[in-house]
Amino acid sequence: MTEFSVDAIRKGGKLALSRVLSRVEADDESGRAALDALFAYTGKAHKIGVTGPPGSGKSSLVNALAHHLRRSYPESRVAIIAVDPTSPFTGGAILGDRVRMPDLQNDPGVFIRSMATRGALGGLADATLSLSQVFDAAGYDYVLIETVGAGQAEVDIVTLAHTTIVVDMPGMGDDIQAIKAGILEIADILVVNKAELPGADQTYRNLVLMIEMGYRGTGRINGGHHRLTIATEARSIEPEGWLPPVLKTTALTSQGIAELEQAIHQHRAYLQASGTWNAKENSAIRQTIDKLILKELSENWKKTLPAGLYETVMQSVSQRKLSPRAAARALLAYNSE
Amino acid sequence: MTEFSVDAIRKGGKLALSRVLSRVEADDESGRAALDALFAYTGKAHKIGVTGPPGSGKSSLVNALAHHLRRSYPESRVAIIAVDPTSPFTGGAILGDRVRMPDLQNDPGVFIRSMATRGALGGLADATLSLSQVFDAAGYDYVLIETVGAGQAEVDIVTLAHTTIVVDMPGMGDDIQAIKAGILEIADILVVNKAELPGADQTYRNLVLMIEMGYRGTGRINGGHHRLTIATEARSIEPEGWLPPVLKTTALTSQGIAELEQAIHQHRAYLQASGTWNAKENSAIRQTIDKLILKELSENWKKTLPAGLYETVMQSVSQRKLSPRAAARALLAYNSE
Repeated sequence: MTEFSVDAIRKGGKLALSRVLSRVEADDESGRAALDALFAYTGKAHKIGVTGPPGSGKSSLVNALAHHLRRSYPESRVAIIAVDPTSPFTGGAILGDRVRMPDLQNDPGVFIRSMATRGALGGLADATLSLSQVFDAAGYDYVLIETVGAGQAEVDIVTLAHTTIVVDMPGMGDDIQAIKAGILEIADILVVNKAELPGADQTYRNLVLMIEMGYRGTGRINGGHHRLTIATEARSIEPEGWLPPVLKTTALTSQGIAELEQAIHQHRAYLQASGTWNAKENSAIRQTIDKLILKELSENWKKTLPAGLYETVMQSVSQRKLSPRAAARALLAYNSE
Repeated sequence: MTEFSVDAIRKGGKLALSRVLSRVEADDESGRAALDALFAYTGKAHKIGVTGPPGSGKSSLVNALAHHLRRSYPESRVAIIAVDPTSPFTGGAILGDRVRMPDLQNDPGVFIRSMATRGALGGLADATLSLSQVFDAAGYDYVLIETVGAGQAEVDIVTLAHTTIVVDMPGMGDDIQAIKAGILEIADILVVNKAELPGADQTYRNLVLMIEMGYRGTGRINGGHHRLTIATEARSIEPEGWLPPVLKTTALTSQGIAELEQAIHQHRAYLQASGTWNAKENSAIRQTIDKLILKELSENWKKTLPAGLYETVMQSVSQRKLSPRAAARALLAYNSE
């Protein structure tokens, strides 16, 4: 990647940006070189993860939030990364290219990127991090990362966000309760969307109650030991002191969105005052470095193995003569001789 | 682990089994030794993943299926591993220990294990694989693995199953459609549960249509190139030739469960006839070996670094003077000198 294109991206050229995003998402040599060159300009954007169970209206909320940010801070730019669970499998082929949030498409200060075309399983979080770095370097002030569903992928993705918003809605069943319990721990801000629906107050009260039970139960308020031991590195560095607020919104009419924006900026102020902002950045960087080193170590090691040895050992394991651990030991022992 | 306890487990002692499962889930030294000792007895169990969107009634379906298998094949034993998304965060503390499927609890041929206590993020799939190996070695013929939600974690978990059942239900919204598209690719069998509800026929027709569109669209029928390039190793080795059947069930009344069991055994016959059964086993083993080697390589490498060097390099990256890739290169270059 030439300096020219770094310039073009930094100057706000959407076509140049779009091209680099594609290269970075493909994770090819030119994409990696671009990330390298752009890295010096990163570290400013506020990365905001938005997650929650299906049907809770996350897309609408992201849409309303982006609108509100653009109206309130006309100088700021907003990037949206929509991580679609169809991506690892279908390349989005079944649903086709859904046109999302059409009223934002013509706003020059908004860039929407769908990850529906991402093919690599297990690489969603890495790819999301890389894309958000490109937006960061390109001068986008907010990167909204929307993930559908709730599971490991969401956890991996939200650990790279500074602020995680968990969206819920009234009247979901018992199965959803389980999911809520799971994603409560990762929430910096909780939103009851579709608050105009019957049962919204009940859902709101439940969430407040679960927050209190959950954080007391897992010790976050009383010392935070549980959180420290089970959380990922990125989460474990977060100090005590932030109790997630629960908000009610109706994204379609922008009801409550101003309050949500306020909570986001309060969380940002908290992160910066407590040093967590930098700690989160550094944790993500550390993970990236470690992954790159691991990949290189693995490739170098494989080169030292004589042809056929791996397959011979693998055959013994396949015949249950050797356990996988014994096989790993045998292969490593050969190498160190 | 002594040979005695291997014997105890193989003889069907539930207490001995329960203890080993706990050690294996904790992934401590005794758990690893147990896995090593038990590995020789693995490779027989039929691992069946059951996944789908929240509210689709997966637990009830697993319950009904286990009952049916036990009634139809009284000699067989059934293990159930319920992977709860609350686990990475709360240790299940919020919901407490839900007593699941009470009518199966007293069946000596059924063992139910909840993964709600699993703490390690990112390790769910590994832990599930390890537990299923213990059940396999202990002589369980079927290991039913239930995962809630749909996302990366589910994908990682189901790739270790021989047969993946994706459960859907009538009348879910647009957001769910996206998820369905995502999990269609991993389905060996599709189930419309709660088939007594209005809209079941519509959901059934949609799924049949999506299967046809999806597999044609992604080239599974016409050559399967797309699947081969984007799938994980475990999936990519599956040959063409199996078109996932779509079934209607009402788990609560066991309606359609006999047909489901039939489809499961048809799929098993297909896997065995095509050689995919062994290929799947070997792919899982290969992944395990590779992970063990990678872990060891990484630990050995870290030992060779002089104290403080990593942190010095990290500081340069944190100040944006060095990119993560340049940092990785610098650290690796030191090591190879």
